[in-house]
Amino acid sequence: MSKDNLDVVGIGNAIVDVLSRTDDAFLQNNHINKGAMTLIEAEEVKSLYAKMGPGVEMSGGSAANTVAAFASLGGKVGYIGKVADDQLGEVFRHDIRSVGAVFNTPPLRQGAPTARCLILITPDAQRTMCTYLGACVLLTPEDLDEAMIRSAKVTYLEGYLFDRDHAKQAFRQAGKIAHAAGRKVALTLSDPFCVERHRDEFLDLVKNHVDILFANEAEILSLYKTDKLSEAVAQVGPHCEVAVITRSAKGSVIISGNEMIEVAAEPVSHVVDTTGAGDLYAAGFLYGYTQGKNLAQCGRIASIAAAEIIAQVGARPQRSLSQLLKDKKAA
Amino acid sequence: MSKDNLDVVGIGNAIVDVLSRTDDAFLQNNHINKGAMTLIEAEEVKSLYAKMGPGVEMSGGSAANTVAAFASLGGKVGYIGKVADDQLGEVFRHDIRSVGAVFNTPPLRQGAPTARCLILITPDAQRTMCTYLGACVLLTPEDLDEAMIRSAKVTYLEGYLFDRDHAKQAFRQAGKIAHAAGRKVALTLSDPFCVERHRDEFLDLVKNHVDILFANEAEILSLYKTDKLSEAVAQVGPHCEVAVITRSAKGSVIISGNEMIEVAAEPVSHVVDTTGAGDLYAAGFLYGYTQGKNLAQCGRIASIAAAEIIAQVGARPQRSLSQLLKDKKAA
Repeated sequence: MSKDNLDVVGIGNAIVDVLSRTDDAFLQNNHINKGAMTLIEAEEVKSLYAKMGPGVEMSGGSAANTVAAFASLGGKVGYIGKVADDQLGEVFRHDIRSVGAVFNTPPLRQGAPTARCLILITPDAQRTMCTYLGACVLLTPEDLDEAMIRSAKVTYLEGYLFDRDHAKQAFRQAGKIAHAAGRKVALTLSDPFCVERHRDEFLDLVKNHVDILFANEAEILSLYKTDKLSEAVAQVGPHCEVAVITRSAKGSVIISGNEMIEVAAEPVSHVVDTTGAGDLYAAGFLYGYTQGKNLAQCGRIASIAAAEIIAQVGARPQRSLSQLLKDKKAA
Repeated sequence: MSKDNLDVVGIGNAIVDVLSRTDDAFLQNNHINKGAMTLIEAEEVKSLYAKMGPGVEMSGGSAANTVAAFASLGGKVGYIGKVADDQLGEVFRHDIRSVGAVFNTPPLRQGAPTARCLILITPDAQRTMCTYLGACVLLTPEDLDEAMIRSAKVTYLEGYLFDRDHAKQAFRQAGKIAHAAGRKVALTLSDPFCVERHRDEFLDLVKNHVDILFANEAEILSLYKTDKLSEAVAQVGPHCEVAVITRSAKGSVIISGNEMIEVAAEPVSHVVDTTGAGDLYAAGFLYGYTQGKNLAQCGRIASIAAAEIIAQVGARPQRSLSQLLKDKKAA
């Protein structure tokens, strides 16, 4: 357990992804909402898994992907999340520690297995997620490593945590600890349907408890119940120190006070799998932020990290992002 | 459970692979024999796993890779192998069934976990394997589905099975059942070190019990204790109906009676990971063979399948090999 100061601590759903190629017909036949994250129960995950094609397992979880990428960028980072005491939990623990992240949350000894996310990748490189939360939502305030949170410049929370009460309590508690230590709190809204399920609570968080907000276009429009991006931008401006809206191939918009910066997307020759694009964007942005870069530089590093992950399968970078930044002269 | 006639039934070590990128220094520092398969025990796999980088899990096992590829080519195929009643065993079962292979071997209820192979991929695309056999070597003659073996045109056995006594018994028994039903028995030698460990038994098998032999250059040289390929070719000729020697980029040689056919390797623009090259070659060859193709055609299909797998990460094909054969006009 490192008691060194960290740049970022991420708190989220500790999940192992099962990636599988499929087609649109499979999604339609199984009534799965393409491009979204749908929560499914133990029986459903069993039945869907039995129907789908062969898979590849790799550690996932939105904030955990961000943490792994942050480590690959060269930052000091920790993670808090709940796995079970099983083989997939061991896979998750190994993968996040092996990139250099501090991860000491005790595993769940009894009850649900480690969370799994069935990620169905269609030929258009779009990912559709069906998540069985299992052990990960049994994260409780007692699992929070307060010293770690106090030591980190930024505590980064994923909106997906909001889908269960225990985790939600841990989420709020982490924010309080961070702010009490004079640290920043960052949040990603995670998914437009997640925002719809918890809009009022997210609005309260964004207005009163979050310093740095990450959202994609669909999420920010859902949060402010509008179909005009300009209106969402106007509303979010006064709510956070920094708000970042990602717009896929259209790049991203960074809003801070009266300042608005448009960042171009980094070109990608061939998009293979969009899994993790938002997670890696957040990693790059927070890396720049905690290194004292200006917002435009943060946006550029974020875009480079996001472009790298959509050119490969899966949400964990397969080569050193630190080296990539040097190659792109963005370090 | 299908009681239909099968083209091939594969019997082998049921293993889940953990693929990880590394460098030559890591192999040297950990005294790992580059390019080979080394057997490791439970404590060693734990310690090596803790030291290595993040991994990606996917079903593996030499004969199982062959079976999965055979199914992808469009053949009717079954598999016999032992997993444990755990999460990795479930992954293995799902993956082989989801491609259409028949797999009904009951899992091990108590004792060792599902076998794992740590596959370390160096920047030269070479794979080095460290295997913890766990449950897979507890395959016994009782696990053999005799009806399935009798129904299959070819029973395909992997040499790796020879590393433990129980599995070796099952291996010999399967060959007997197949021959008693008038079927063919195929064997792959698997690994030069495996051949060294069991040379006399392999020689006896090849001389007396195997119809179709697969070996790479290092394996066949080790089997006949020679450093001249021509000598090994002369020796193996009278021992089997068909012997195939694979030679990586140099293609392959098919020996049958007095006939010797040289097959060019299929061109690959960029070799990513050589894991599974031999397994896929065997799948392609056996697919041609069970479809009644001539030996040159069998070699061409084999080369196409092998080329496909080394251009991707992992030993299970990510796209339909049946379609690939059509595209290459080799169906």
